[in-house]
Amino acid sequence: MAIRVLHVGLGPIGVGVVRQCASRKGFKIVGAVDLDADKIGKDLGEVAGLGRTLDVKVESKLAAAIKAGRPDVVVLCTSSSLSKVADQVADVLKHKLPIVSTTEELAYPWFSNKRLAKKIDVLARKAKVAVLGTGVNPGFTMDALPITLTGVCERVDSIRVERIQDASIRRLPFQQKIGAGLTPEEFAEKVQGGAVRHVGLTESVAMIADAMGWKLESITDVIGPRIAAQATKSEFLAVQKGQVAGITQTGTGYDKNGQALITLHMEAYLGAPESYDAVIVKGLPDLHMKIAGGVHGDIATASITVNSIPKVLTAPAGLQTMRSMVIPSWFGGKTR
Amino acid sequence: MAIRVLHVGLGPIGVGVVRQCASRKGFKIVGAVDLDADKIGKDLGEVAGLGRTLDVKVESKLAAAIKAGRPDVVVLCTSSSLSKVADQVADVLKHKLPIVSTTEELAYPWFSNKRLAKKIDVLARKAKVAVLGTGVNPGFTMDALPITLTGVCERVDSIRVERIQDASIRRLPFQQKIGAGLTPEEFAEKVQGGAVRHVGLTESVAMIADAMGWKLESITDVIGPRIAAQATKSEFLAVQKGQVAGITQTGTGYDKNGQALITLHMEAYLGAPESYDAVIVKGLPDLHMKIAGGVHGDIATASITVNSIPKVLTAPAGLQTMRSMVIPSWFGGKTR
Repeated sequence: MAIRVLHVGLGPIGVGVVRQCASRKGFKIVGAVDLDADKIGKDLGEVAGLGRTLDVKVESKLAAAIKAGRPDVVVLCTSSSLSKVADQVADVLKHKLPIVSTTEELAYPWFSNKRLAKKIDVLARKAKVAVLGTGVNPGFTMDALPITLTGVCERVDSIRVERIQDASIRRLPFQQKIGAGLTPEEFAEKVQGGAVRHVGLTESVAMIADAMGWKLESITDVIGPRIAAQATKSEFLAVQKGQVAGITQTGTGYDKNGQALITLHMEAYLGAPESYDAVIVKGLPDLHMKIAGGVHGDIATASITVNSIPKVLTAPAGLQTMRSMVIPSWFGGKTR
Repeated sequence: MAIRVLHVGLGPIGVGVVRQCASRKGFKIVGAVDLDADKIGKDLGEVAGLGRTLDVKVESKLAAAIKAGRPDVVVLCTSSSLSKVADQVADVLKHKLPIVSTTEELAYPWFSNKRLAKKIDVLARKAKVAVLGTGVNPGFTMDALPITLTGVCERVDSIRVERIQDASIRRLPFQQKIGAGLTPEEFAEKVQGGAVRHVGLTESVAMIADAMGWKLESITDVIGPRIAAQATKSEFLAVQKGQVAGITQTGTGYDKNGQALITLHMEAYLGAPESYDAVIVKGLPDLHMKIAGGVHGDIATASITVNSIPKVLTAPAGLQTMRSMVIPSWFGGKTR
């Protein structure tokens, strides 16, 4: 029996999830909801750029879509901000449906958004379903994966994660999100306004800290420009020498002595010579893990969202995180 | 409140677990059982080579040790063979105690030992506790870790894992177990007799296959000698050119077309130029992960066993595997 999925939010990430659910075994898309007037009423296949129709019309109202589609699960890809999606989560839970969401701040809201986390947890338990925030980062490369690696350690002293990405192979909105092509002044302004930043480092630091049982004194999240030392370009953008090629961002968790226990360092810029994800655990033993080429952000976020759908159906009721879930795995359409 | 642990089986792996439980926060050792007359009646600290007493006398009888120690959990490190430990597992379950075991064949018994797996599952559910087989391999590097990595994949076509170890830094029993110093003829004889082999490749292949939802036609487990191209030695052994420096062993899972979907390749020999663990996932996207230096087998097996103790206390009742458990993590003595 295919899992009946309702998609809420049809931005770039949302349609990435739609494309996988439409083409992978084990899923039946039974509805889609978005607020964009350009999408409402159109066939979901067209909106998702599938090149074929899916016989699913994009709706504007959640309740009507649930009533018509009778989904088993809702995939929520509307915003990075938990305060923006909290009401949407509550609405879905009124219908007693489990949720998988790509909302970055939902990946581990127990530090920055404790009150909302508690509220969602209570509603989900009452509805007897699980709610999970996931994605490649936060959700995997900078939290669940390093936590998993510490499972073979006798002692853990500190954890450092590096995620270095050559942004030139990513989509245009991503290149814009990291500030490629801006002057340093424009970059600083955009950072100030919150338009240029990766959301989730604080969430990942907090998830790791709680998994290790570490009490942190503070978490910092520092953004800076990566200035082009020479001219570089992508399919979409040209960057002059001295302009911004992309972003560096570091989330750090400090103990009460000012020691950095957790360091999550990202760089995403045009022309990075090597993309990779690395985890360095200092302890007994030390561990040095590297994924050559890195984990492709767009594919991976949609993939882990889709792969989490069958797991969230059997997870205990309440607000779950990748830390409290059964180990991730690819879902090939049937469970054995 | 410290977790009260009873240790059953005090061989090299068992005492490795004892040493960690004795020195790490969050545990209180309340008993130890072994059949070896040389150990019975002695203080566990002495038997484990701790250089201090633990005020725990090694017992010969499980029931008496449970009655005296009132453990929360039993750690079982008596044998690689499930048929040899099945009665011990059943005995512990009579006392309604959860079990973490390093028995390799218990890591994923649903292929080779289905009848015993079913029996243990039923007994554990009846006792309302969880039973888990774990270790570095099987249990982590060649199954749980590659499965975890596929969580970010849209499609998985095949999985290859390599575990290459320079055995010269390992303990003498390990070097003997891999046949170092034997002639090729002696090696072949020992393989024939079952004395030289790594136990667990079939279990890891089966765990991965079930996680991927793949139906395998067959699983093979092939052992060969690694012949020394030049003289080499360890602290304990000298190997002449032409003698056996160690073992190569490959577990392979084939589909009905004879295609190798899962390949788990191990080499452990004196003088390996580089130790590492690698996972290569072919699919969308491809993933190339490498742990430089590898995961040290002795420390890691004891560590993941100890780290699994708090998790098994809250796991659902029944026979669990690393595939059905919450993601692994280091346990620092308290849960947050």
